[in-house]
Amino acid sequence: MSELENRIRDKSLLSKITTPEKLIPLFEETEKRILNVGFSGFTPVGYPKVMPLVIADYVEKNNLKGKWHFNLFVGASMGAEIEDRWAELELTNMRWPYQTAKVLNKKINDGSIKMGDKHLSMFSQDFLYGYYTKDCGGGLDIAIIEASSIDENGNIILAGSVGAAPEFITMADKIIVEINTHNPSFEGMHDIFVSDIPPYKKIIPITDVRQRIGTPFVPTDKSKIVGIIESTKPDNGRAVRGSDEVSETIAQHIIDFFQSEVKAGRMPKNLLPLQSGVGSIANAVVLGLTNSPFDNLTVYSEVLQDGFLPFLDSGKCKFINATSVSLSNEGFEHWWKNYDLYREKVLLRPMQISNNPEIIRRLGVISMNTPVEVDFYGHANSTLVGGTRMLNGIGGSGDFARAAYVSIMHTPSCRPSKTDEFGISAIVPKVPHVDHTEHDLDVIVTEQGLADLRGLCPKERAKVMIEKCAHPAYKDYLNDYLERAIKATGNHHEPQLLKECYDMHISLAESGTMRFWEKK
Amino acid sequence: MSELENRIRDKSLLSKITTPEKLIPLFEETEKRILNVGFSGFTPVGYPKVMPLVIADYVEKNNLKGKWHFNLFVGASMGAEIEDRWAELELTNMRWPYQTAKVLNKKINDGSIKMGDKHLSMFSQDFLYGYYTKDCGGGLDIAIIEASSIDENGNIILAGSVGAAPEFITMADKIIVEINTHNPSFEGMHDIFVSDIPPYKKIIPITDVRQRIGTPFVPTDKSKIVGIIESTKPDNGRAVRGSDEVSETIAQHIIDFFQSEVKAGRMPKNLLPLQSGVGSIANAVVLGLTNSPFDNLTVYSEVLQDGFLPFLDSGKCKFINATSVSLSNEGFEHWWKNYDLYREKVLLRPMQISNNPEIIRRLGVISMNTPVEVDFYGHANSTLVGGTRMLNGIGGSGDFARAAYVSIMHTPSCRPSKTDEFGISAIVPKVPHVDHTEHDLDVIVTEQGLADLRGLCPKERAKVMIEKCAHPAYKDYLNDYLERAIKATGNHHEPQLLKECYDMHISLAESGTMRFWEKK
Repeated sequence: MSELENRIRDKSLLSKITTPEKLIPLFEETEKRILNVGFSGFTPVGYPKVMPLVIADYVEKNNLKGKWHFNLFVGASMGAEIEDRWAELELTNMRWPYQTAKVLNKKINDGSIKMGDKHLSMFSQDFLYGYYTKDCGGGLDIAIIEASSIDENGNIILAGSVGAAPEFITMADKIIVEINTHNPSFEGMHDIFVSDIPPYKKIIPITDVRQRIGTPFVPTDKSKIVGIIESTKPDNGRAVRGSDEVSETIAQHIIDFFQSEVKAGRMPKNLLPLQSGVGSIANAVVLGLTNSPFDNLTVYSEVLQDGFLPFLDSGKCKFINATSVSLSNEGFEHWWKNYDLYREKVLLRPMQISNNPEIIRRLGVISMNTPVEVDFYGHANSTLVGGTRMLNGIGGSGDFARAAYVSIMHTPSCRPSKTDEFGISAIVPKVPHVDHTEHDLDVIVTEQGLADLRGLCPKERAKVMIEKCAHPAYKDYLNDYLERAIKATGNHHEPQLLKECYDMHISLAESGTMRFWEKK
Repeated sequence: MSELENRIRDKSLLSKITTPEKLIPLFEETEKRILNVGFSGFTPVGYPKVMPLVIADYVEKNNLKGKWHFNLFVGASMGAEIEDRWAELELTNMRWPYQTAKVLNKKINDGSIKMGDKHLSMFSQDFLYGYYTKDCGGGLDIAIIEASSIDENGNIILAGSVGAAPEFITMADKIIVEINTHNPSFEGMHDIFVSDIPPYKKIIPITDVRQRIGTPFVPTDKSKIVGIIESTKPDNGRAVRGSDEVSETIAQHIIDFFQSEVKAGRMPKNLLPLQSGVGSIANAVVLGLTNSPFDNLTVYSEVLQDGFLPFLDSGKCKFINATSVSLSNEGFEHWWKNYDLYREKVLLRPMQISNNPEIIRRLGVISMNTPVEVDFYGHANSTLVGGTRMLNGIGGSGDFARAAYVSIMHTPSCRPSKTDEFGISAIVPKVPHVDHTEHDLDVIVTEQGLADLRGLCPKERAKVMIEKCAHPAYKDYLNDYLERAIKATGNHHEPQLLKECYDMHISLAESGTMRFWEKK
């Protein structure tokens, strides 16, 4: 028996084994409407790697560019090799709810591809409510799901991520399963809980990150499986950016903050479950915790990144919840070598659960994310550069920041533009797009320092933010702006100067630096 | 035995009966720090009506204005007769998290009183975490609580609102109880559930609005009760604004929307629990539902207003959850006459529960609130007029809008300014302050029409909003702005013109109308 056949324990489904080419007709536009297609996958892991490329090849070879279109739903980002081919071939009409690929991104920002972004936990919930496809009945035409295997009863056992795959499997009319025989099976690491719809929605009974509340498989109506194909492709592991001095300084500020919170009795000695975004600051924080006196730590987060492996190996971290194992190629190598350890210490949950405000609030998760920029009153822009150009999407940052025990946003105080070493300040008078409001954020950290905004009114927040977080190149201007805004409004609750609140952004767009006063 | 003594069933506490004057020394500033004081009360009901005024009188008579200061915490708004006296006498140093009184508001917007606003469910949670008073140990010096009575074990039984009173009672060093003998007792109508602190926070086990999960009293450490005084003052009932044509048209759009959602299978026949804000549109919606074919409806909301009484009387509404019985004087008269009915159909919960995202999301609450304004991409401003001047605070609008099954914002499309009948549009290109983001809102309604934003990308949302919701006097300008923004950004994901996005607001401030193009 082949490895593929081994992975299909429900032998009645062996007859569904086929080639991707034979499944192509399913994607033809026969009706006068765009097909709704859902892929498994999250932060490019666990996405289907065969069928989408075969579709792209077929469209290219048969000169169908511009003729086939799909509304494409994926839990979060997926492999750029697929996203970008689909974007180039105009296969993607609308894309929900998060993306990171270059060509796709360009087309989202030139109006040729539509994108919607939404809090991830809410996306998969609302997908189940039928909101995203309500003009054609609320369902999903086809789901393409990467799987580790299929169990005795025809239920799908997922691969390295869960994301929104359970909801897609539930809602799809037809399911194509790509069994990945290149990777070992992730069986046993998933905990799949799919909620009902109001008024029958259930309590999500997690009170400890180690709790299993669901099944190791996705409950699947196997009669919907129209084809099973083999994938022998590895996940397109994401390279880890090395740490740097700025990230390490930020991490140290955060660890100092944790220590003072423990001392004040506002956090237990082993802290509370940690959520940590993606990138070098997140890596530095986890590394810092690995080398800290803290012990018995837990993680309730979206993505298990490379930095978490030494965190687990060291014993400092006793358990991790995530919705995706998003490792680099070297990370995956280490992962599979030590899989016996990780199997006992990691649970992968659907993103509706990993990012669920009910659980985040109950567990008291400490959330840490990197925004594009923040303003000195404590609003954050996480999605739109210059207030207009989509970067990736809000992802889970709002799920966590809004419901967390302490909501931390961390960012370098300043980044270089093409022409100015200090051209882009992360602290501005007013963000040109708000994804997280002043009502949600607690702590802002840059390499300059940490601003604890809890319990402060807006003007107090502004002063602390400028003093503690802003880069020295911007302090004078920010202070001056604040003073003039206070004067101009007669000291309103939250002073702004609507005529010049975006001068820094306008200057960046027009002259390549936010420091327009330097030009005078 | 007096009525006051009758209301105190724990006879060991009779010795605590005293006069408010004798309690004055508790409020003297003896240490070198401002006292933190918490009052019961919510949307001016159930607040202490005696002690605060006696303090004010004392301060006035003894020329202590400017010498006594308090940080004042109240669940939401309380009686203006107290708020404004305290503000005039400079007694209020900082005020959390919501207010509606005139003098207080003026002083918040001239810099003489500090205010913080926060999602109400999060305010009481974070208060329990010690965030608001963390610089002096995280506690509360004194709580003043209006009560219906005290039970056999010294536990406080609240009056017409719950709000954050349970958290204040838990956190206070000293408690003063004002037993209101003017009103009949509300005993039995409260369901008090106070959660632990992470990592011991509990599941909130509500799956149906009728469920009791707590106690009818607030668990009270009676040794903290330092005085019991009698209050014979009625609640300062809020006058009901009558309905009008615009509100009725908006209500009809919403009811039509409900009917189409039921037809599409996205809502059950008896809808889902309704949350409804305060004001004439909310009243019109409830009146509309009372006269609609819908039946067996339920309410999971913050405030029980006058409009809900005929809704209950008619049998259309079978159960209401709220945190406050906020009725007019006539409303209260009707309430007490029919109290036997209401006692079976109303539960009052702490605002940490009435506004809890865990429950709102689980039950699938349909939320309806009125913003100051919305922009055509779907961000709402609920707090800061002109982006700077505090109105009341975010209150519970974010608790509900963010977690709801469907988040509806309703507003007249246009209001008159002093000099222009159509001077203020509720639909603008960019709101000057964001309290609810585009990631949170589903449906916007004005008397012009209803825009269903679910599943749309930003530019689609903008087109639908202008077409369906904007007032005719603003459509051309909004369309023109949108087109130019698309062109100027090269069709970015969410086009804006940072140089002119607030022209409508600047014009309103400078020339009394948002229609600056009319002047040309």
